[in-house]
Amino acid sequence: MRTQVGIVGAGPAGLLLSHLLAGAGVDSVVLETRSRDYVERRVRAGVLEHPTVELLREVGLADRLDREGMRHEGISLRFDGGDHRIDFADLVGKGITVYGQQEVVKDLIAARLGDGGDLRFEVTDVTLDGLADAPVVGFTGADGRREELQCDVVAGCDGFHGITRDAYDPQMFDRTYPYAWLGILAKAAPTHHELVYANHPHGFALYSMRSPEITRLYLQVPPDTDVNNWSDAQIWDELGTRLAARGFTLNEGPVLEKGVTGMRSFVAEPMRHGRLFLAGDAAHIVPPTGAKGMNLAIADVRVLAEALTTFLRSGDETGIDGYSDTCLRRVWRAEHFSWWMTSMLHVPPESDPFGRRLQLSQLRYTVTSRAAATTLAENYVGLPHGVSP
Amino acid sequence: MRTQVGIVGAGPAGLLLSHLLAGAGVDSVVLETRSRDYVERRVRAGVLEHPTVELLREVGLADRLDREGMRHEGISLRFDGGDHRIDFADLVGKGITVYGQQEVVKDLIAARLGDGGDLRFEVTDVTLDGLADAPVVGFTGADGRREELQCDVVAGCDGFHGITRDAYDPQMFDRTYPYAWLGILAKAAPTHHELVYANHPHGFALYSMRSPEITRLYLQVPPDTDVNNWSDAQIWDELGTRLAARGFTLNEGPVLEKGVTGMRSFVAEPMRHGRLFLAGDAAHIVPPTGAKGMNLAIADVRVLAEALTTFLRSGDETGIDGYSDTCLRRVWRAEHFSWWMTSMLHVPPESDPFGRRLQLSQLRYTVTSRAAATTLAENYVGLPHGVSP
Repeated sequence: MRTQVGIVGAGPAGLLLSHLLAGAGVDSVVLETRSRDYVERRVRAGVLEHPTVELLREVGLADRLDREGMRHEGISLRFDGGDHRIDFADLVGKGITVYGQQEVVKDLIAARLGDGGDLRFEVTDVTLDGLADAPVVGFTGADGRREELQCDVVAGCDGFHGITRDAYDPQMFDRTYPYAWLGILAKAAPTHHELVYANHPHGFALYSMRSPEITRLYLQVPPDTDVNNWSDAQIWDELGTRLAARGFTLNEGPVLEKGVTGMRSFVAEPMRHGRLFLAGDAAHIVPPTGAKGMNLAIADVRVLAEALTTFLRSGDETGIDGYSDTCLRRVWRAEHFSWWMTSMLHVPPESDPFGRRLQLSQLRYTVTSRAAATTLAENYVGLPHGVSP
Repeated sequence: MRTQVGIVGAGPAGLLLSHLLAGAGVDSVVLETRSRDYVERRVRAGVLEHPTVELLREVGLADRLDREGMRHEGISLRFDGGDHRIDFADLVGKGITVYGQQEVVKDLIAARLGDGGDLRFEVTDVTLDGLADAPVVGFTGADGRREELQCDVVAGCDGFHGITRDAYDPQMFDRTYPYAWLGILAKAAPTHHELVYANHPHGFALYSMRSPEITRLYLQVPPDTDVNNWSDAQIWDELGTRLAARGFTLNEGPVLEKGVTGMRSFVAEPMRHGRLFLAGDAAHIVPPTGAKGMNLAIADVRVLAEALTTFLRSGDETGIDGYSDTCLRRVWRAEHFSWWMTSMLHVPPESDPFGRRLQLSQLRYTVTSRAAATTLAENYVGLPHGVSP
């Protein structure tokens, strides 16, 4: 079996890459260890940056997104008893769109299959060989048959726990945080039309939504928290306390999902090894506070699709040689922004009264200085693709 | 002996407070343990914020400053082999003035003595009593005579190592940094017209000047550094390495002074105890990277002079009751800015490659985003007095 680009992983990165390549006349095969049903239901991020939405529109993938996505023109920061809106529309003339990652995945899968794309779910035992010049991706198909996929290049889009990064020895940069998020998905209509980020003495809380019927809420908790030790009533109670503001009431409703997620920053450099190119979570992880994970993956594959197309058409290696450095500029900007939002909004567990005062000064400054609010807004809505920040 | 305001300390805070009070018809006596000669020669900060210069002009203290001060409309940030100018004039329409703290002190002393102000140098054994309602400041004069100064209020302007803060038990916030500055004063004409802040893999370096003949230069060093272990030649060599940029040459010259200064952040809350009001370094210390120390002292005494004048004229306590909170807003803004500049520019001694990459991303962002550059500029030139950041 032969294709031009072997893509490992059918998350947003792998699927969009396959779509972009197809649009440029480049063949690919996507291999995914999970089932189609699983990846279409996996609840992940829900905030699409402005450049992400623009790209999805450009390549004809935004019909449902434009119908069902919830456009937001700001967020609220709550601290010290006050509520402060960061007005993205006013500050940078752009907004974000709330649309679940699994919805993006559904749209991408439907589009690829509709176009005759080759997507293989439930494959096992994926192996990589010949990455120096003639890659071969070995895998066992859902039917149990062992196959070999000969390709010109391999795209590693298989996430943080994937196998492609293990094919070489990149330099790893990382940081773990002394807190985690306890998240719930609740059947409750949003009571507020935008996201609310709260820094409360008890810890961070985030109010968000996935649809007009579904609310998504988070609480900062210690990293070793057992979700079973928190009853639904306790969760609602604590959310009420941390998110409290005049005129704000939290609609409660049945809890559909409940889980604890760790917070981590991670980058692997370079993002290329021979004919292997990593994209998305396979190469970098951000804590969720900045809502950057899926957006970075999409920015990566935009650069990669163009670089691979040029290379495969003409043999010109300029694009693929620059791929890692180009992506890493945006990656490190997002890493910094995500770290900044995380540090500003979470209450550190150890006693650091000086740090706590710095946090409050930074929050006050962010909501009173137009320049400071603009730094938050321009990073949050997403710096334009193709600039080198 | 009686006065309205007993001022302990003849640094910029105490002297300016005495001047501002005199302008409003309020009497004061300034007590200083050092000699006049000592305080007039003590080399400290050299950057005056825009609001500091405006205030000194308003109260008639800026004649020599306007003649001899060097107005700067930007600074340079150097990192990763590049030089990047932050253009204050373009970003915020203001600048800063380089004029040594000891020159401000000379001007203030001359003005107070010219106006018949009561300044007493070389006093010893200063004591405070009756701070609840009838303060008495005890001291031994330069002539060896023990005296008692009865006053309505006491201003503690005696710096970080002063005695006034010991009169009560404020909450202390502090942070020390794992590096220090090795500073030299050199008889060498400036080779560049503005300050240069360099983040080099070896550590931070700062290029600045005090006058058209005197250069002031700093190197990040470990906190336990013995200045005698650095020869002048080694210092010039390391400065040359860290400050290197195309078209930049460092004029060398005889080293006039050489010393190592620790880096620390410190705040005492509240800044008031009964009839005692702290101002300047007595209440707060910032690392020098943001050039905020003297400017904060001046902002404090502006608020204090107005509050005391109202109180002493009419008994209205609104101003003195709000003094600490009003000042602490600006203090914490400056603490945050100074910490931010310090963390961005100094290379941490322990190995933290993730943190190092964040630094570089933050530096790149600061010089490429107009909003981010504006946050640096507006803090550096000084937020307007009287706003609540």
